[in-house]
Amino acid sequence: MNKLRWGLIGGGEGSQIGGIHRIAAGLDNAFTLVAGALDIDPARGRAYAVNLGVTPERAYGDWREMLAAERKRDDRLDLVTVATPNASHYEITKAFLTAGFNVLCEKPLTVAVEESEDLVRTARDCGGICAVNYGYSGSALVRQARAMVKRGDLGRIRVVVAEFAHGHHADAADADNPRVRWRYDPKLAGVSSVLGDAGIHALHMACFVTGQQVERVSADFASTVAGRELEDDALLAFRMSGGAVGRLWTSAVALGRMHGLTIQVFGETGALRWQQERPNQLLWTPLSGRVETIERGEARLLPEARRASRTTIGHSEGFLVAFGNIYADLAEVVRAANERRAPDPLALSYPTAEDGLRGVAGVWAAARSAREQGAWVDAVPALLRAT
Amino acid sequence: MNKLRWGLIGGGEGSQIGGIHRIAAGLDNAFTLVAGALDIDPARGRAYAVNLGVTPERAYGDWREMLAAERKRDDRLDLVTVATPNASHYEITKAFLTAGFNVLCEKPLTVAVEESEDLVRTARDCGGICAVNYGYSGSALVRQARAMVKRGDLGRIRVVVAEFAHGHHADAADADNPRVRWRYDPKLAGVSSVLGDAGIHALHMACFVTGQQVERVSADFASTVAGRELEDDALLAFRMSGGAVGRLWTSAVALGRMHGLTIQVFGETGALRWQQERPNQLLWTPLSGRVETIERGEARLLPEARRASRTTIGHSEGFLVAFGNIYADLAEVVRAANERRAPDPLALSYPTAEDGLRGVAGVWAAARSAREQGAWVDAVPALLRAT
Amino acid sequence: MNKLRWGLIGGGEGSQIGGIHRIAAGLDNAFTLVAGALDIDPARGRAYAVNLGVTPERAYGDWREMLAAERKRDDRLDLVTVATPNASHYEITKAFLTAGFNVLCEKPLTVAVEESEDLVRTARDCGGICAVNYGYSGSALVRQARAMVKRGDLGRIRVVVAEFAHGHHADAADADNPRVRWRYDPKLAGVSSVLGDAGIHALHMACFVTGQQVERVSADFASTVAGRELEDDALLAFRMSGGAVGRLWTSAVALGRMHGLTIQVFGETGALRWQQERPNQLLWTPLSGRVETIERGEARLLPEARRASRTTIGHSEGFLVAFGNIYADLAEVVRAANERRAPDPLALSYPTAEDGLRGVAGVWAAARSAREQGAWVDAVPALLRAT
Amino acid sequence: MNKLRWGLIGGGEGSQIGGIHRIAAGLDNAFTLVAGALDIDPARGRAYAVNLGVTPERAYGDWREMLAAERKRDDRLDLVTVATPNASHYEITKAFLTAGFNVLCEKPLTVAVEESEDLVRTARDCGGICAVNYGYSGSALVRQARAMVKRGDLGRIRVVVAEFAHGHHADAADADNPRVRWRYDPKLAGVSSVLGDAGIHALHMACFVTGQQVERVSADFASTVAGRELEDDALLAFRMSGGAVGRLWTSAVALGRMHGLTIQVFGETGALRWQQERPNQLLWTPLSGRVETIERGEARLLPEARRASRTTIGHSEGFLVAFGNIYADLAEVVRAANERRAPDPLALSYPTAEDGLRGVAGVWAAARSAREQGAWVDAVPALLRAT
Repeated sequence: MNKLRWGLIGGGEGSQIGGIHRIAAGLDNAFTLVAGALDIDPARGRAYAVNLGVTPERAYGDWREMLAAERKRDDRLDLVTVATPNASHYEITKAFLTAGFNVLCEKPLTVAVEESEDLVRTARDCGGICAVNYGYSGSALVRQARAMVKRGDLGRIRVVVAEFAHGHHADAADADNPRVRWRYDPKLAGVSSVLGDAGIHALHMACFVTGQQVERVSADFASTVAGRELEDDALLAFRMSGGAVGRLWTSAVALGRMHGLTIQVFGETGALRWQQERPNQLLWTPLSGRVETIERGEARLLPEARRASRTTIGHSEGFLVAFGNIYADLAEVVRAANERRAPDPLALSYPTAEDGLRGVAGVWAAARSAREQGAWVDAVPALLRAT
Repeated sequence: MNKLRWGLIGGGEGSQIGGIHRIAAGLDNAFTLVAGALDIDPARGRAYAVNLGVTPERAYGDWREMLAAERKRDDRLDLVTVATPNASHYEITKAFLTAGFNVLCEKPLTVAVEESEDLVRTARDCGGICAVNYGYSGSALVRQARAMVKRGDLGRIRVVVAEFAHGHHADAADADNPRVRWRYDPKLAGVSSVLGDAGIHALHMACFVTGQQVERVSADFASTVAGRELEDDALLAFRMSGGAVGRLWTSAVALGRMHGLTIQVFGETGALRWQQERPNQLLWTPLSGRVETIERGEARLLPEARRASRTTIGHSEGFLVAFGNIYADLAEVVRAANERRAPDPLALSYPTAEDGLRGVAGVWAAARSAREQGAWVDAVPALLRAT
Repeated sequence: MNKLRWGLIGGGEGSQIGGIHRIAAGLDNAFTLVAGALDIDPARGRAYAVNLGVTPERAYGDWREMLAAERKRDDRLDLVTVATPNASHYEITKAFLTAGFNVLCEKPLTVAVEESEDLVRTARDCGGICAVNYGYSGSALVRQARAMVKRGDLGRIRVVVAEFAHGHHADAADADNPRVRWRYDPKLAGVSSVLGDAGIHALHMACFVTGQQVERVSADFASTVAGRELEDDALLAFRMSGGAVGRLWTSAVALGRMHGLTIQVFGETGALRWQQERPNQLLWTPLSGRVETIERGEARLLPEARRASRTTIGHSEGFLVAFGNIYADLAEVVRAANERRAPDPLALSYPTAEDGLRGVAGVWAAARSAREQGAWVDAVPALLRAT
Repeated sequence: MNKLRWGLIGGGEGSQIGGIHRIAAGLDNAFTLVAGALDIDPARGRAYAVNLGVTPERAYGDWREMLAAERKRDDRLDLVTVATPNASHYEITKAFLTAGFNVLCEKPLTVAVEESEDLVRTARDCGGICAVNYGYSGSALVRQARAMVKRGDLGRIRVVVAEFAHGHHADAADADNPRVRWRYDPKLAGVSSVLGDAGIHALHMACFVTGQQVERVSADFASTVAGRELEDDALLAFRMSGGAVGRLWTSAVALGRMHGLTIQVFGETGALRWQQERPNQLLWTPLSGRVETIERGEARLLPEARRASRTTIGHSEGFLVAFGNIYADLAEVVRAANERRAPDPLALSYPTAEDGLRGVAGVWAAARSAREQGAWVDAVPALLRAT
């Protein structure tokens, strides 16, 4: 198996997300980093890329330089990852898609709904992959949950409850901490803070596991720390395309909670519960039965979960492996395209531009509902409604 | 210590709640059952009362007979517990209060807000105790939590999150089960099902622990099983008198959840988390600190919790002890009144008629909000607003 | 149902165990305290008994006075509980048994093996009940576990692992604390400290759940705090009468552990795990199946567990209820004898003098093995070997 | 940073351990696979190596061929991993060490104690690295625990309790399953089965965290499934070089346990508890304090743990990262040697040949003790005693 050629934009020295992407992309030896524009400081970015093994000619000072050079090469990049600040996702992703590259963009796909709609259209027109990195959805047991719902184990879904609550912005003394402050400034963060940053993962998870989409939402936003213009705690009620009732709580002031991404799905004939901090166990309760613990690695695991698992039962696999599974899916789809064959259908699990668009639309709808005192707001983006 | 004289209305043979009240009332040998009207069938009720050790002359056929006879006696009942179906709480409680008895009424205090208001007024006028049995609030560590909030350990409270989700009404085949059906019939259950029955405990817990009251509420009700007219799943956003932001989820279709009453309180300088199914542990996270486990029985326990605890650290104390603590509080207050002294101030922790009224008002406000598409509704009962 | 007449020896004011016995005996209204010799100080004991509602003539200064007076009465005590310091168990229990009373003795039954053998013989000769208070064995789900083993759900038992580890003697500064010091003084505590005090519960639990008896034991005792003559940490390997292999760890220096009584039973076709600190859940793993959580109160609970349960699923029941179940068993057996009928066979679950003897013999055998460098020692008491 | 050149012996197609080593070695981009003898079938091994990106000339048919060719190359391998069946570890590791290579050998280092002693001597003579892959010891919070003990947070260690119990050999029907059968055949597995395979990790963990070595051991081995000649359940009492008392239970018939590697360390002034299945949390109890949860990624983490961590708090990191940390240590030590500088002292955390020897010696001593009915047996290998 040839390694695929991978380019990275953003994720420079000292950034956490860059390191995670490099580990995840390389986890199965699928991708090798051959080009990058890693830093807002061109010299630093070039030096760091070289340090990571990129040849000097493909260590770029910025993404425009990278695009101009890479589009002309014969040894074309198989995938470009965009891990820059949110506000630049749209422009960069659009440019690379238009030039015919496959792109994996960090979440949120864009800041504004219209931008995401445009990316969906662009991806459709250009025929390339446009994926969005909701990394937790790569977890083996999240895929098990989704497959069980799809297979009908839970019957019709009645209620889905999602949470993503942490306490990392609970210290009021952080008011001037630049790593925190921008997140509550509408000029930099847009219409939402904690929902757009953390809760959006829970929102995607609710959709990913149920196979349904958010249609309407009623929300309450609260800013609980003095001086914050955007919400640091939010509650959403929603309704989904398949009739499921949704509940979502997200918070950045939930002291004592580390990440706390949790999903519970209650159906007519069974229920599932998964917590991101214990990713190797999935609780399953059949109607009239007991709570059972499904273990990652168990013999009965469904194929969707088995292929997302690398070690035997009892070992723990965490976030890096989940992330790596998104890359593994993309590798299969890229290889299949390169080889002009159909991809493994199970590889089509990665979140797409449509998923990215729906997430951004959901956040905007919630923000509007919160401004309108909890009024129910349509959350389906116009582009996808038309479809 | 003389045992106090106790009368019970409802809780006949085969009822679970009657057995629990008898255990709880007798836990510290405080109350002895001397009179009762235990069953809707007079003969059965009399026979069962005698079987429980009540003398035949005080084993009554119904509560009116009991009231008529007991009000004339010199060896007056120290406390009357009302454990009849919800719709009769108002009339019975009012009658006994008016006759000068102390009453502990099962929750919900009444079906309608105006009835609860009338009971609050009646209790004030008559000078007797009118308590409401939110039994979980008697748990030692719930009282520890309340005392820590009151002492200021958490600083200003930002967010409180309460849950009471179970799955015992998840089976659609129960449509004709008489133990389930009435709960979803507005004629029998009033404006709310799962919120009025289960969620009301979570609502009280949020108030009890924070020391704040619910002021406004926005709610979403859902009936997820065909044929149900009332909600079996509800989500509430609310605002409290001290500025806390509230979130509450309650469900009767949450398969895999047994009771799941949970409370999380997030303040400026610390946070607490308690689960009714693990009542002997309370999680405490100071700002910038780690999650610590407070154990019931530990040396540092506050007096409010210590007096609600009967065994040393490491033993488990459960629901019956929590319930017993409500009775223990009432015993102290009754004794103090009998002895014309001030009661132990810590005994004033039991839920009062005002708490009962607030719970009913909260449920009604939520039901109205749900009907009005999530509009924010005032939840403060008129009587207490006027105060 | 008439209440049974109950007498208590020991358990005076300020003692924890006395309060627990009073709550447990009264839990189902089965026993009423009518006589007592509660304190080593006769005047204090009499006063406290009267305070608890005992008539002055039956509030005794010591157990000899109580025995002399009570044996002559027509309204004979139905049960006498012995909750005095360990060294006096033998003499008091023997005297009351001999006089024809039923006795519930705190664990350990006696300090020496021969004394326990004598009590077994005495109980057989006199025909009265001699029960030993291994209180945890009254827990509903412990009885579920025992019933599942008995029914064959686990097949032949291969391994049983029991633990009782706490950290309450971990502070070396307690060397002069009189509540701790005597426990490590062979003159006062006998041949063993933590095994005889705490581990003996785990040893009984291993026998109770498997239905097997300890036959041989190899032990390691360690005194980890300077100045202690007896062990504060012990490890036992053992073999049981039905072929099960046993492992037991007990400690008093296990900081961070509160009680930690735990039992795991591994059979050919399934396994069980129960922790005293989460008594309302029992983990069950069928061969080739998943770990399932059996909840106290679930519909499928076996009759042995159902009758030991007082509230519905999702409520927590703790130590006091477990303890109360021992008293409930005794009440049924005493009533059946009074009424000259056979008792409910399920009531015969309470630990007997034989169980008390086996526990003491197990501790002595382990102590001998530890002195003999881990040599395997026969743990079956001579009296029961002969049988 | 240049990637280091890595060779792999064993770990061919279909082997789980090979895939894990490849992920772990590549996790930080430290090592690149340039040579391999991956399979007992030469053609399959060569083909698979080429498939993994090894050039054909370095894709060998067996380890002898590999050694002969690689020793002559200028672009020498920086590290060779030996992941072959246990019985061949000694010969291969010795050959590569002697030829001047650095070796990471899978556990157990060898089958016999004398072989391990010879490898220790060989490594000393040749000056290369000889590491042993106790992979769990690379977990960030295991290193935190070790560092806390070393810093004195726990004071003198009194007791260490280690477990590694799983149920994967509980099915008696597996008697003829070739993946299970050989493990209980002394001819293939040596003197021990579950202790040598699983328990040895717990034994190393006890040493690694306490910084002490096992000196004497008393053991009980049991074969609980008919037809097994070696133990499938073992209990060890031991004493350590710093005075700690040890307890270890290991089992292969513990149904319902997946891996269950657990370590508890109890000291004079504090205690720690870590479970491999929840690797991102470490429980810490200071004397007179509460149980606190140390989270991987928290601000106060010690440097030893921080460098073993790749993501922020709340993300889960699992087994592959732990494994990767062993490789990261080796990469630093190899680089330092290549660059003729002193390595980061924290990189010296990887398990060495001495640790491998001690593990094998511990297993042999336990096996002898079990044969001698629990007699205490010296567990210090002669070579290290002499030192």
